[in-house]
Parts: sequence; structure tokens; C-alpha cells
Amino acid sequence: MTGFACPAPDSGTDRILLGHGSGGQLMTELLTGVIIAELGGGEPLEDAAVVDVGGRGIVLTTDGFVVTPLFFPGGDIGSLAVNGTINDLAMRGAVPVALSLAYILEEGFPVTELRRITRSAATAAKAAGVRIVTGDTKVVGRGAADGLYVTTTGIGLRTGEELPSAAGGRAGDVVILSGPIGLHGTAILSAREGLGFESEISSDSRPLHRLVTVMIDAGGTDVHSLRDPTRGGLSSALNELADASGVAIEISEETVPVPGHVAAACALLGLDPLHVANEGCLVALVAPSSVPEVLRAMRSVPEGTGAVVIGEVTDGPPGRVVARTLIGSSRVVDVLVGEQLPRIC
Amino acid sequence: MTGFACPAPDSGTDRILLGHGSGGQLMTELLTGVIIAELGGGEPLEDAAVVDVGGRGIVLTTDGFVVTPLFFPGGDIGSLAVNGTINDLAMRGAVPVALSLAYILEEGFPVTELRRITRSAATAAKAAGVRIVTGDTKVVGRGAADGLYVTTTGIGLRTGEELPSAAGGRAGDVVILSGPIGLHGTAILSAREGLGFESEISSDSRPLHRLVTVMIDAGGTDVHSLRDPTRGGLSSALNELADASGVAIEISEETVPVPGHVAAACALLGLDPLHVANEGCLVALVAPSSVPEVLRAMRSVPEGTGAVVIGEVTDGPPGRVVARTLIGSSRVVDVLVGEQLPRIC
Repeated sequence: MTGFACPAPDSGTDRILLGHGSGGQLMTELLTGVIIAELGGGEPLEDAAVVDVGGRGIVLTTDGFVVTPLFFPGGDIGSLAVNGTINDLAMRGAVPVALSLAYILEEGFPVTELRRITRSAATAAKAAGVRIVTGDTKVVGRGAADGLYVTTTGIGLRTGEELPSAAGGRAGDVVILSGPIGLHGTAILSAREGLGFESEISSDSRPLHRLVTVMIDAGGTDVHSLRDPTRGGLSSALNELADASGVAIEISEETVPVPGHVAAACALLGLDPLHVANEGCLVALVAPSSVPEVLRAMRSVPEGTGAVVIGEVTDGPPGRVVARTLIGSSRVVDVLVGEQLPRIC
Repeated sequence: MTGFACPAPDSGTDRILLGHGSGGQLMTELLTGVIIAELGGGEPLEDAAVVDVGGRGIVLTTDGFVVTPLFFPGGDIGSLAVNGTINDLAMRGAVPVALSLAYILEEGFPVTELRRITRSAATAAKAAGVRIVTGDTKVVGRGAADGLYVTTTGIGLRTGEELPSAAGGRAGDVVILSGPIGLHGTAILSAREGLGFESEISSDSRPLHRLVTVMIDAGGTDVHSLRDPTRGGLSSALNELADASGVAIEISEETVPVPGHVAAACALLGLDPLHVANEGCLVALVAPSSVPEVLRAMRSVPEGTGAVVIGEVTDGPPGRVVARTLIGSSRVVDVLVGEQLPRIC
């Protein structure tokens, strides 16, 4: 199966392109070349920032959600926003404490849908044991937004002194994936385009903080890096980890679990499952000695029953991700350059 | 000068109206009837929430910004977002510690403007001594947003055990206003409509946390309530304080400082200055014994040089705000029902 992307736009453009929001290479360029540059520094590759607040390490993350459609098999923009924000905190090993919820609404948006989305966000927060403590609502005129956008921000409490970090990977680490890939992206695309997979494919949107807690309980600081492969899919997540850690990663393609319906949808659409967004799995780089305990712990919770080893960290060229195929050849796993699927989250 | 508002929409509507974002009565109905109701509780009238994070009281606030135009006399959406979020923290007596910045960009938005806005946000944060530590960028297709929206979230550290609160006002308290009103709203409207006031009226957008710090240093827990009169203007802020505290407020209309150019613009446009948005002043309810010290402290910093007493809290009907006029009559100061001016912040 070969990769597919819209024609790569000129990254030297002076206009924002859809590809700037893809989670791929254009986005990294925009972040590092414009936003981080103007902010005077930052950690573009981390999911959340650590802030010292009166001597305590508080973890802060923010995420905008513009998914279309707003309701899809397996979730909606409300639960997606809550789970996604919890997961960004969890990827830094933080226990989520509180969330905020900011809506931008288009004039004419149905109040019943706003109610349904808010209820869904509240239910997701309650299920995860987190409180939505504050919020904001803005309304723009007809045509100035597409229904409803939501930005959620989360604060969490770090669990240990040393946090998992995108930069924490070392040669010799084992690459663990917590479960099947490709469900969220294909569910959205199927719902959007009416492809008929809607009854078979649901988004995997769910909170991963409990999975992370058992992993850190089992592996401690041997859990070097955590990443949820959302926009840009597993390929972007692996490339970001390899880049930030200055290491190479080698995966065995046949060990990556791709559900049958996802594979069929990807084949139909010309998508590479490694590029498709996920909202309920994570990839971890773990020191080899702790892998058995970490795997056992992961498989003890529902979010990690499908946990598998998919590869290893090597001392190859920094930033390179390679997949070994079944027939013994290997291919470079690239990040998406342009945009595969806009408004996926 | 009489109040002006677009025809009040039917608040029993099943569609979102522009007035639902106005900061007035429709917005309160949407918040309490839909959003807070579905979230299962909350403090709709507070600017920021207090969260216990590992034994420390952390203050959290979030705010979406959809102002148009993006650049206006006295600021732009970047500095406005940073200052506005700092001010929401300050109204709970919190010292701002860190901010997050989440963009929603429309495809085709000029990168140079994104750079300029980001630089402005960074400059505003630096001037206020706060760090922007994390962010997010989403891109939607042409026509699915109006250029750029930003949602900022702030965390702050409470300065004392007892925080100023919208519900803290008591009969006998003195109502203090930190400076002139009406500048932000008339600056935006003038820039938007090309009314010719642009050279004379600038937004008052600025951070107020230092002003709050000196007020609390001077008055301690006698500073009962703080509010920045943004959307909905001074009238909404006073009504919200009166509602939340279960008290009446009486102001003397002639003591409220309205700059000449603002008065002229309001007269031209049929606006009541009490309804016009501000981004750089605050109203406070302070116990009488501390008023001299608090006023002296306010006037010692640039943001508070124009601080004046404008009225008092009475034991009249809870929630009622009345303005005494120069000729000795009095009028009820209502909150805006519909929308005076959409996308003001």
C-alpha cells in the first residue's frame, strides 16, 4: 500500500494552506518558522508544557477541535475534545486535574446540538474523573465559522520527578503500540463521505491516562517517551519521537495492528494506515529491561489489551524511521508533507 | 443618551443568535440554561475558576477571541487575547503564571499577519511578565472561519486565602472604577466602519494584574469583588456583581468618566457608553474603611491614575443597578438584552 497525499503545496508560500494544519512537515515548518520563532522559544514537539506553579510542576496543554462532521461513529466533537486533551496531558505522564472548554459558535447553530455536544463533553470528563471548571462562549455571524469549534485546555499534575518526553528515546529502547491504528481517521472519512463503513468502523476516541498510569507504575522512568498518534498518524508520531530524541526507529510493518475494515477502507481510498489519525492509542519508547512488566501492565487495562511490540530504537541516522516489510525489504516511513485529510480532529 | 440594541431576539429560540455572545442577558440564559446545566454545575458569573492542584489553589481561565478587524487602534487580536486572559485571572486576585495560545486559521490567511499577531501576543506576554508555554494550530478551509480566531487560557497563582469574587459584594461597599470607559468598543467600531475616530480613540487593552496586586496589598480582603467590564460594558459588569452578590448598586452617572471622543462617537452611533466594551479598566467593590488606601494605591500605578468612586452597594432589591442622574432623577441600568456590537473581542 503506497502513501497518498494531496499535491504537496509550496512550503515557501505566504498564505496558510490546509496542509499547515495536518500534523505533518508543513505544520512543523509553520510552528518552528513562525509561531515558536515569534514566541521566542518553546517545545514544538511536546504534547504539553511543564510549568512551575508555586513549587509544583503543573502540566498545561491546549487543543482546538474543528472536526467535521461534529457527530461520528464512536463519538462527537465534545467527547473528542475532552479525551484528546486528557491524552495530551497523559503523554507527559500527568494526571488530569481540570479542563476548560471554549466554544466558537456560528450564528444559527442549533441549540439542541450545542446541548448534546456539551453533555457529551461532560460525560467524557466524568468518565475520566476530571472536572470542566471554566469556559467561554463566542458567537460569530453566519458564514464566519462552520457550526461549532471548541478549544479545550487541560491542567494536570505530574506523577514523578522525571517526565516522559518526546526527547527521551535512546538507542536500544523498544517501541510499543497500545492497540490497533487507523480507526478514528477512517471513521471520520467514512461518515463524511458516506462510504458505507460507518457501521463497521468507529473512532477509537478514549482517554489514555489510566493506561499511562499503569505503564509508569510498572516501568517508572524506563518509560522514556509517550506519544498519541493523532493528526499525521503513527508515521508522524514516530518521526517526531525520532527527531526529538535524535535517534532512528525501525519498525516491523507486519506487527502493526490494522483492523480489517480499516485496511479495506484505506485500500479503497488510497490511504496509508500509518498516516491515518488515531484518538485512542499511544506509542511508547521503553527501556528493554522493563518491557515485559510494562506490556503486562498495559494488557491489564481495557485501553491496552492490544498492546504489542512493533520495533526498536537504533543508533541509525537521527530522525530516520524505517519499516521492515514482510518480504525482508525496508522502506522509509515519511511524515506527511501536505494534507491527507483536513479537519480530522 | 438612551440605550441602543439590535431588536431583542426571541430568547426561546432553538438557534444560536449573535446576541448569545453579547455578554448580556441572552448569553447568561445560554450559559445557565444549556452549558452550565449540561456540565452539571459551575460558576457562570466568575471570570476564572479556582482548582485545587496538589494542595495549591490554581486559578484557571479561558477566553476565545474573534474580534474584527484583527488590527485596530491600540492593539490587535494577539495582544488583546493575552491581556484579556491576564485580566480574567487578575479579577480573581491571581498572579498570572503561564498562558496557552490556540489558533484556528482560515486557509489562505496571510502568514505575515500570523507572524505579526504572534509577535504581538509574545510582546504583550513579556510586558506582563508571563510566559506563553504551549499552543495549538488548526487550519480550516476557505469560508469556514473569518481569517484567524484565537483561544487563550491562563493559569495563575492565588495571592491570598480569600479571593475577590463576583459574589463578595456587601451593602455599604464602595464602587470604584479604575479609569475611563468606552474606549475599546468605540475604537473597534470606528476601525470597522471607517467612522473617522480612529486617530482619536484607541482601545484601552492592557494587563491589569499589577493594578490588582497593589489594590490587594492596600486593601487585603476588604477588596470584595473585581470585574473587568468587557463585553456588555460597565452596565453588564455592575449587574453581574449585583446578581452574584445579591445586593443593589447605585451609581452617580456624572462620576463615570467618559472621554469626550467616546461620548461623541456614542452619540453619533446611538450607543450608551455604559454598554460599550472595555479591555483596560476594572470595577471594584471595596469595604468603606479601606477605600482611601485602595484609591491611593490604584492611583500610584499607570493603569489606575484615573481611579474614581462611582457609587455604592446598598441593601436595595438584589440585582438592581440604578444610576442617579445630574438632575436628581434615577434610572435603572439594564444589561444588554440582544447584541449591541458583535465580535468586539
